[in-house]
Amino acid sequence: MESSIIGYSRGDYSAKTFQAVNPSNGEKLSVHYAFASYSDVDKACEIAADAAMEMAGFDGKKKAVFLRFLADGIDEITDLLVEIMRLETGLPEPRVRGETGRTSGQLRMFANLVEEGNWVDARIDRAQPERQPLPKPDLRSMLRPMGPVAVFCASNFPLAFSVAGGDSASAWAAGCPVVVKAHHAHPGTALLVAEKVVDCLKACDWPEGAFSLLFGEGRTVGQALVSNPSIKAVGFTGSRSGGKALFDVASSRPEPIPVFAEMSSINPIVVFNEMDDQTTEEFTDGLMGSATLGTGQFCTNPGVVFHPGGNWGKTFVSSYAKKMSEFSPCPMLHKGIRQAYLSGLNRLSSTPGIEVVHQSELDLQDPGCLAGTCVMSTHADNFLNDESMMDEVFGPSTLLVAYDSKEQLMELTKRIEGQLTISLFGENSDLIENELLIAFLETKAGRILFNQFPTGVEVCPSVVHGGPYPATSDSRSTSVGTGAILRFARPICYQGFPDKFLPVELQEKNPLGIRRSEV
Amino acid sequence: MESSIIGYSRGDYSAKTFQAVNPSNGEKLSVHYAFASYSDVDKACEIAADAAMEMAGFDGKKKAVFLRFLADGIDEITDLLVEIMRLETGLPEPRVRGETGRTSGQLRMFANLVEEGNWVDARIDRAQPERQPLPKPDLRSMLRPMGPVAVFCASNFPLAFSVAGGDSASAWAAGCPVVVKAHHAHPGTALLVAEKVVDCLKACDWPEGAFSLLFGEGRTVGQALVSNPSIKAVGFTGSRSGGKALFDVASSRPEPIPVFAEMSSINPIVVFNEMDDQTTEEFTDGLMGSATLGTGQFCTNPGVVFHPGGNWGKTFVSSYAKKMSEFSPCPMLHKGIRQAYLSGLNRLSSTPGIEVVHQSELDLQDPGCLAGTCVMSTHADNFLNDESMMDEVFGPSTLLVAYDSKEQLMELTKRIEGQLTISLFGENSDLIENELLIAFLETKAGRILFNQFPTGVEVCPSVVHGGPYPATSDSRSTSVGTGAILRFARPICYQGFPDKFLPVELQEKNPLGIRRSEV
Repeated sequence: MESSIIGYSRGDYSAKTFQAVNPSNGEKLSVHYAFASYSDVDKACEIAADAAMEMAGFDGKKKAVFLRFLADGIDEITDLLVEIMRLETGLPEPRVRGETGRTSGQLRMFANLVEEGNWVDARIDRAQPERQPLPKPDLRSMLRPMGPVAVFCASNFPLAFSVAGGDSASAWAAGCPVVVKAHHAHPGTALLVAEKVVDCLKACDWPEGAFSLLFGEGRTVGQALVSNPSIKAVGFTGSRSGGKALFDVASSRPEPIPVFAEMSSINPIVVFNEMDDQTTEEFTDGLMGSATLGTGQFCTNPGVVFHPGGNWGKTFVSSYAKKMSEFSPCPMLHKGIRQAYLSGLNRLSSTPGIEVVHQSELDLQDPGCLAGTCVMSTHADNFLNDESMMDEVFGPSTLLVAYDSKEQLMELTKRIEGQLTISLFGENSDLIENELLIAFLETKAGRILFNQFPTGVEVCPSVVHGGPYPATSDSRSTSVGTGAILRFARPICYQGFPDKFLPVELQEKNPLGIRRSEV
Repeated sequence: MESSIIGYSRGDYSAKTFQAVNPSNGEKLSVHYAFASYSDVDKACEIAADAAMEMAGFDGKKKAVFLRFLADGIDEITDLLVEIMRLETGLPEPRVRGETGRTSGQLRMFANLVEEGNWVDARIDRAQPERQPLPKPDLRSMLRPMGPVAVFCASNFPLAFSVAGGDSASAWAAGCPVVVKAHHAHPGTALLVAEKVVDCLKACDWPEGAFSLLFGEGRTVGQALVSNPSIKAVGFTGSRSGGKALFDVASSRPEPIPVFAEMSSINPIVVFNEMDDQTTEEFTDGLMGSATLGTGQFCTNPGVVFHPGGNWGKTFVSSYAKKMSEFSPCPMLHKGIRQAYLSGLNRLSSTPGIEVVHQSELDLQDPGCLAGTCVMSTHADNFLNDESMMDEVFGPSTLLVAYDSKEQLMELTKRIEGQLTISLFGENSDLIENELLIAFLETKAGRILFNQFPTGVEVCPSVVHGGPYPATSDSRSTSVGTGAILRFARPICYQGFPDKFLPVELQEKNPLGIRRSEV
């Protein structure tokens, strides 16, 4: 039996345990994981609070050393990860290797960011003792760590948004300790990475409270974690209901804290005009690739396409359905996701006005988590009359919505909720003719694409993986890219401090040579 | 009778009205102000939503023209403001003139900021079509306006944090329309400024929805405003209960929105050591000046002093009480504030362990809002045992807390809630000896001062007027200084857009010559 990791110790071996399930065959894996006790949660938060004080003094170099050491450490265990992740998640080997590389790449990206040091938004206002009518004092400000961060592992990114994924990496980079809640679907993967984290903390002389890993349920362990007064911010990737529950807990604390929950998005695709045959073929291929990538289990999976209908629309719908029907059913990540997918399909397909153009046949007796593709079609009149068509169906299905006119496309645009992405397909002239529409779309998404598909999120400084509610709970944030660090830092101003007692980033001689705004 | 201002029109002349009261004599002023109807609120939000679409296309220059035009306009009506503000608030003429200058100064500061354009955090990742295994797409991101912002006028800054104050100025600068709820204590001041805003919008060819002013109560009009789906963020300066109520409304909307509420702070002063006679004299003078400035009605008013006690402490306490007793009672801003001040004093003075060293005698039959100073004294043992001593008493009173040891000072530090400011008084050597203490203090405040008093907040790029809860509802924000604009903007990423269809800030040739992070 395995228990939680509380700093350099192990948590309680409580009576309540769980096992992971192989989604390929539905069989339980052998290891039992003990649910974290409330005392485990308290202990993890307590040592995190202590660690926060020490880590606040870490410079960029010290943080970079740890992040790079951990990146190397994760690369080293790639083969072990392939093994356990295939058992726990059914993900194919190339995906596991790719996600491992993304995870270590993210850690190195943040190492570079904090070593360079420009991210702290250093601002300097020098004193003007002679100013009339009042002297101006010396004020200098920069971003400083928020304190301990609770991170929730994502089911669909067992590495890149889990134990040492983007949330943890950005929190550590900001100088914040991390208390991670493992996802029930891949505890062994979490534990393997967690042990590597602990090794690296020790090797880099970091305090043990910089990291803990808790096993348990969201409604008990997760909510206890978010309620703990030592926790100062939350990173979450998951369902709308799960994110909303944590947001509500965090908002109703005596001291409310920010929750950065990435929750739900149908990532609309807007087709401005009929396409010629070749473009239609390329578009349909690209859409199919994007909609089925990772068995449709990416946050940026395109769930709905607004297209101009007519004869072209009919050809497009049938051609897309044909392509999607050629995609063989694959296992989803776990039973809960598959169950939610099938329920979503049932709900949508029985909604008046929706035609099921294609749905893969599935053996519902299959003990694994196999899921096939689905293509549904409807008219914008129906979509506008039924809000439930806007709800995310997480999986490889697409709803194709034919609109009649630019006016109706504008109506659709006004009606959709906040999204991670919106993708436009058309000519340059469409960008001119639809200026107002695009201005509206901008209010609905964090990332707008032109003639590209939304999956395959680039990890880089410019990316925005965020968006208005319910895409995320805080549209001013991104959980991917260097901007993710800004979630876990807050500005602090030092007024009248002697130079040598200022943080080095703010000292007069700028010893780090970072970019600063100076007056 | 006056009614609300809804864009370029007037709101309903509803039956429910209120009048302002002269706090110097308790007499009602003659003008009746009609409460905004719910239809007024809806209309203001509806036109704000329309204006948001148009304003999202405004460049920095167009925004700067309006902000400067308004700054000039406010300077022009200074004499009129002196007249009406003295009636509505009892504030002395120099304060009104000073606050007018601060208000127009803030507008010009934001004009400069958006004209220069660096604030948008432009990030560019150029395409790498040849990259293996996958080509890198072109991604570019920048901060864009959040949408309509609800602003609540502060009672204690009838100009600088009201109709055209820091919240509105930063929202307009970000490109967001503003719907302002007037404070009941100074509706005439609000109306005078609002009419100037409307004139300037017309002159600068801005849409009418860029501004509305609503009269009414927080619990009805204010909450209806925050509940309106068109509103995307909230700026508030006021009481803890008022800010919390709005935060709860905003968090429980179907689409939760961020609330930037600046609420409550006792701005602790930490004295590390006994001082010599001259330093004591200077410190006591400075503390008295800071504690009585604006009759103690500033958010950064120092409400509590932790001092080393002993014989020096006794001298300090009696000397400070003597100085405070020389301060003549002045009118507070309105009856509600004075009532809260007197209740707070009663509560504190009857708390076991607290000694009232000085309290100005007041004629409680006086129809005005006169308030005098108060100095109370206690020991850290009592303070640590009674959380209620940490509650803000808004007004010219100070609680002096003697501590026995550095360990006890650390205990005090750990116990206090989030603050706008914490001020340290001592020698450079104290900054070395108390490194851990200062690290702790940093987690509790947005601004840390050394040998300076917290009032007289400098309006500049480096200032942070924010802090952990309950100082503000979002410690990652500041409501003063150029950083205030960041509250009302969110990053948007454009992927694969042809150069000429990108916002000008992100175009390849950088026609504005702004600072950008480029890869």
